[in-house]
Amino acid sequence: MADAAAQAPLTLLKIGGEVLDQPELLDAALRAFAALPGPKVLVHGGGKAGTRMAARLGVETELVDGRRITSPEMLEVAVMVYGGLMNKQVVAKLQALGVDAAGFTGADLDLVRAQRRPPGRIDYGLAGDVQAVRAGVLARLLREGVTPVLAPLTHDGQGQLLNTNADTIASEAACALAGAFAVRLVFSFEKAGVLLDVADPQSLIRRLDRAAFETLAAGGQIAGGMLPKLQNAFAALGRGVQAVYICRADAVAQLGSPAFEGTEIRNGAPPA
Amino acid sequence: MADAAAQAPLTLLKIGGEVLDQPELLDAALRAFAALPGPKVLVHGGGKAGTRMAARLGVETELVDGRRITSPEMLEVAVMVYGGLMNKQVVAKLQALGVDAAGFTGADLDLVRAQRRPPGRIDYGLAGDVQAVRAGVLARLLREGVTPVLAPLTHDGQGQLLNTNADTIASEAACALAGAFAVRLVFSFEKAGVLLDVADPQSLIRRLDRAAFETLAAGGQIAGGMLPKLQNAFAALGRGVQAVYICRADAVAQLGSPAFEGTEIRNGAPPA
Repeated sequence: MADAAAQAPLTLLKIGGEVLDQPELLDAALRAFAALPGPKVLVHGGGKAGTRMAARLGVETELVDGRRITSPEMLEVAVMVYGGLMNKQVVAKLQALGVDAAGFTGADLDLVRAQRRPPGRIDYGLAGDVQAVRAGVLARLLREGVTPVLAPLTHDGQGQLLNTNADTIASEAACALAGAFAVRLVFSFEKAGVLLDVADPQSLIRRLDRAAFETLAAGGQIAGGMLPKLQNAFAALGRGVQAVYICRADAVAQLGSPAFEGTEIRNGAPPA
Repeated sequence: MADAAAQAPLTLLKIGGEVLDQPELLDAALRAFAALPGPKVLVHGGGKAGTRMAARLGVETELVDGRRITSPEMLEVAVMVYGGLMNKQVVAKLQALGVDAAGFTGADLDLVRAQRRPPGRIDYGLAGDVQAVRAGVLARLLREGVTPVLAPLTHDGQGQLLNTNADTIASEAACALAGAFAVRLVFSFEKAGVLLDVADPQSLIRRLDRAAFETLAAGGQIAGGMLPKLQNAFAALGRGVQAVYICRADAVAQLGSPAFEGTEIRNGAPPA
């Protein structure tokens, strides 16, 4: 870790939410990402393009408890849209911005190997739970000046591609790289960060530690999709990631400066 | 070239034609490819999956002089199907066979930069003519034990993906790598090789040099799609590639052995 601290920090940026459906915000996010110093990794989610493509192809989206079930037909759509169209468009744009980007799924270079989620109460279909990230290969690419762009897809090592949540890929990759780099993990989307009132950008929480999070969660002030995201964030901090940020995608341009608008998450004292 | 000769030859295999539509032949081809010693590169064409997907999405395939015009909608289909589905399925299968494969378009790592074909008598739309292959980056990956899997897509360096013929990508990559490796270039498909009578596998031409080719072409015995493929082959031989093979995809298993079934193409004396 002494070595890691001596280098420029590595930024792992996850772009999700509606950013991928808003061309101007996506372009602003990619420009901000391109301008970041130091090694970096981009992870993108799917946005609504996958759902739209599934509808055009007559592939039904099945949801159980708000979670998408990945049928073989839906996996094909995900591989086409996330692993193909979205990933390659982002790579081509980053190349135009002078970033030596390379797009990967978890199958490429065996970067992210997963296990098909065992069917229990719910059979999630072709959904993969991350087992291993090949951090050494990612680190080699980064040292060579390459910027990996990861699609939310993994494989089982036996020829089967699997659908995996982009937040999970982002935090697993961040934790795996924490042994070789000082890592900051950024979850970006279309909102300003963690808000006490989702309708009011002025209610942005600028700093959050574990104790404050526990208090807010217990009081019901943080709920919904933000809960697993923050649990994810604290888990990453517990596994060596130096700081986690949640912000609007274009706020990445101010990352590390006092002008940064967003939520910075660091481990405070552990909860009593 | 002395250095190149000292190493195991590099095999650049292009899989095309109907192989991608025939799962058993594709699997046999990938197994044969996986078993090849030495550094290797796979280039895949599109097969009919792109045409089928375009039909499902109501995207019209426009042909002029037998050549596909790449509309923006058709490019999206190509990026989804060739750059996404097909590329990642091949990568996942190769990984399962123990090959450290990584799938790329020409945009990834700026591997194959192209220029949009200038509209003349025909406007080919978003079709790219290859300008530069980053052979140094490919060679570095190969030395690291990586097997690149190239989709038939390029980019213009300004953020635009382009559609490029897979045969062209294969021969351009082979020629670019000929400075660092002894390269054999294999065009594989569902037929036995160059046939004097396309309906008769027994009419396979086992060896072809330029003089014989000129004679057969002048006599009309080689025609149709095989003509540009062979012109391509001789052009590659003139640019440093050591040998070109045209064969059935599963015959790759016998490449370099006396049992090999296919057409071996080498430069003979130049035509008078």
